[in-house]
Amino acid sequence: MNKLLVLQSDFGLADGAVAAMSGVAHEVDVDLKIYNLTHDITPYNIWEASYRLYQSVQFWPRGTTFVSVVDPGVGSSRKSVVALTSAGHYVVTPDNGTLTHLKKFIGIEAVREIGESLRRKEAEYSHTFHGRDIFAYIGAKLASGQMTFEEVGNEYPVDLIQEVEVGKVEITENSIKGNIDILDVRFGSLWTNISREDFLSMGFKYGDWVEVIIKNGPTLVYNNRIRFGKSFADVYVSEQIIYVNSLFKMAVAINQGNFARAYSIGTGIHWTIEFKKVD
Amino acid sequence: MNKLLVLQSDFGLADGAVAAMSGVAHEVDVDLKIYNLTHDITPYNIWEASYRLYQSVQFWPRGTTFVSVVDPGVGSSRKSVVALTSAGHYVVTPDNGTLTHLKKFIGIEAVREIGESLRRKEAEYSHTFHGRDIFAYIGAKLASGQMTFEEVGNEYPVDLIQEVEVGKVEITENSIKGNIDILDVRFGSLWTNISREDFLSMGFKYGDWVEVIIKNGPTLVYNNRIRFGKSFADVYVSEQIIYVNSLFKMAVAINQGNFARAYSIGTGIHWTIEFKKVD
Amino acid sequence: MNKLLVLQSDFGLADGAVAAMSGVAHEVDVDLKIYNLTHDITPYNIWEASYRLYQSVQFWPRGTTFVSVVDPGVGSSRKSVVALTSAGHYVVTPDNGTLTHLKKFIGIEAVREIGESLRRKEAEYSHTFHGRDIFAYIGAKLASGQMTFEEVGNEYPVDLIQEVEVGKVEITENSIKGNIDILDVRFGSLWTNISREDFLSMGFKYGDWVEVIIKNGPTLVYNNRIRFGKSFADVYVSEQIIYVNSLFKMAVAINQGNFARAYSIGTGIHWTIEFKKVD
Repeated sequence: MNKLLVLQSDFGLADGAVAAMSGVAHEVDVDLKIYNLTHDITPYNIWEASYRLYQSVQFWPRGTTFVSVVDPGVGSSRKSVVALTSAGHYVVTPDNGTLTHLKKFIGIEAVREIGESLRRKEAEYSHTFHGRDIFAYIGAKLASGQMTFEEVGNEYPVDLIQEVEVGKVEITENSIKGNIDILDVRFGSLWTNISREDFLSMGFKYGDWVEVIIKNGPTLVYNNRIRFGKSFADVYVSEQIIYVNSLFKMAVAINQGNFARAYSIGTGIHWTIEFKKVD
Repeated sequence: MNKLLVLQSDFGLADGAVAAMSGVAHEVDVDLKIYNLTHDITPYNIWEASYRLYQSVQFWPRGTTFVSVVDPGVGSSRKSVVALTSAGHYVVTPDNGTLTHLKKFIGIEAVREIGESLRRKEAEYSHTFHGRDIFAYIGAKLASGQMTFEEVGNEYPVDLIQEVEVGKVEITENSIKGNIDILDVRFGSLWTNISREDFLSMGFKYGDWVEVIIKNGPTLVYNNRIRFGKSFADVYVSEQIIYVNSLFKMAVAINQGNFARAYSIGTGIHWTIEFKKVD
Repeated sequence: MNKLLVLQSDFGLADGAVAAMSGVAHEVDVDLKIYNLTHDITPYNIWEASYRLYQSVQFWPRGTTFVSVVDPGVGSSRKSVVALTSAGHYVVTPDNGTLTHLKKFIGIEAVREIGESLRRKEAEYSHTFHGRDIFAYIGAKLASGQMTFEEVGNEYPVDLIQEVEVGKVEITENSIKGNIDILDVRFGSLWTNISREDFLSMGFKYGDWVEVIIKNGPTLVYNNRIRFGKSFADVYVSEQIIYVNSLFKMAVAINQGNFARAYSIGTGIHWTIEFKKVD
């Protein structure tokens, strides 16, 4: 193990919760190097937690341990688990859908349920902060090499991992349709679930004008033509652009503006986006 | 010393102030491991600074050094100090009430005033950023082992440490009354000053309905019955719950909602909360 | 190299972008110690990025490597560079004005353009996230000692570094006039471009009353007398004060209040501030 421990949650950084998790981890091993992925996941939003893992885990060295705690079901029968990805990363998390994107786009090799007897003894009267008392604690044991993946607990079939619903991509002769998965928050860019390969299979080339149709359920929200560019510098400042994002999926932005805010656009599988060939 | 240095302030992370503190600390010792507790303390709010230390310091290894800078009296005669807690942690801070909760709930072994001659020489014309020029600097000296606790300066009686006022808990035959100390900010849960032991001494058991009365000074803000549960999963989503929080004190929440926002509830010793037996 | 890598951007910490940058850096060298300067730079705001580097770089040990990514021109012909400051720090950044304050107030010894062939191979289809694929990657190579400054690419004259416009300071017999460079955000204090030396050359002394005139372009926004103090404790709580800030420049604040919010004051070279002698 490389002693790297990366924490994610919906706790925010305004109080002492994340610091308590880091403290517990260092109590296990003072030599760990602890980082924050993000703690600004929207409270209770499992989808976002799953997506942010997908967006960042793959760029860390093999053997890095991640802890993700977005856990609306704390205290329920949902499992506490450790997953090993196909790329060799460990993820300690409630099994509540948080592993959806990693399973679908990176692959999960194996998953084990954390044994009940392994939680911090000192927290016997507290049943609401598993982030500190189970996930950070077990994450630190793993990252430090004090516990092996096998020692975590019983393995169960990867097929049984809980998943949240992911949008589909539909391709017809002259259009490709998917949904808006998430925003590049600070810049208001729309990140879709349509891959670069699928988009290019339509025959689109850099410089082409593409018709874009965005709907919130049945309601039309946006319909206009946008150019497909390589990078923001291919269009004027304040011009709109279709581009391949850093995860090799199609995205839409206003260069130095905020597309989502300009048109009040949200995210989810009911927020569909269609790219159509222009005659 | 374990080379761990943990920083807290009301500076926020939007500018370069905290980075300047971390830089100064690494200039003292490049091998330190520096973490942020939080820098989102409400500006000038000593109570919050004190509470957040209480919420997290105890979970770090013995010998960890903390720096807390919420310092509305910078430049006044308030002392710059290092406190040694009964659990073996060092806290470098202005003595302005920031040590209240650690003193009351963890215990402070000894406290020393930082000698005037010890501040960074390079900051001779600046008198407003003791966070960088005194607290982070001295914290780094301690955490690195370059300075002992004794070398910090003169010891003075722990009794003389400044304290902010803490609310009382009143117990009668059929009710227990305290105040709302702080919020679990992201989730809007109310954290009271009523300990689990005191609450249980009333005879309450998991599953019991309890009458809850919340007042802002003399004004009634909330009065309803809530169930006492072990964890959020014991109630429906959007149902209210009384539970034992991660510091073993009584708390009130809406499962996957936001209690404080729902009823516009604040914190402080004038925000009282009473738990009454239901006939 | 001291293995310290400090990251700044306008990406925020709410998504996985910064974590992806840190991951890439640790993939280069697992022993780096990575810190965040700030990631809350206002989107696309090169001025702020430049100022925050000036505010913090100088306090870190020689040989520390900084990565700053506020990059509205990503994909354009703007250069990707590494600058070596006169104080021995490395800054990896787009050459778009981000180096303005370091060049003017600290000094830049040399600057080299990052060779096209050096970017991460794995990111071949992504052209919008140079923060991950070039800047963090090259920063990690430098900080780890795997690449020397000379190996970065061709040197070019320091004179050719892009700069953003910086305000002037005008001194007359009985007044000194400059502009409001930036805010001490959390506390609403105004940080001007007027140095302590220039201010003192007017003959002002601690305790003096000074007339302060603030304009937004031609529009008068504030005109009143304020005392020049050593530190906040020299004035009453809620009183206004002129003081020397932590960068040895003149600043204006409300003690435990928020000056900028009180009078709706902004920043930039069109926000002028004048200190006049009182008869």
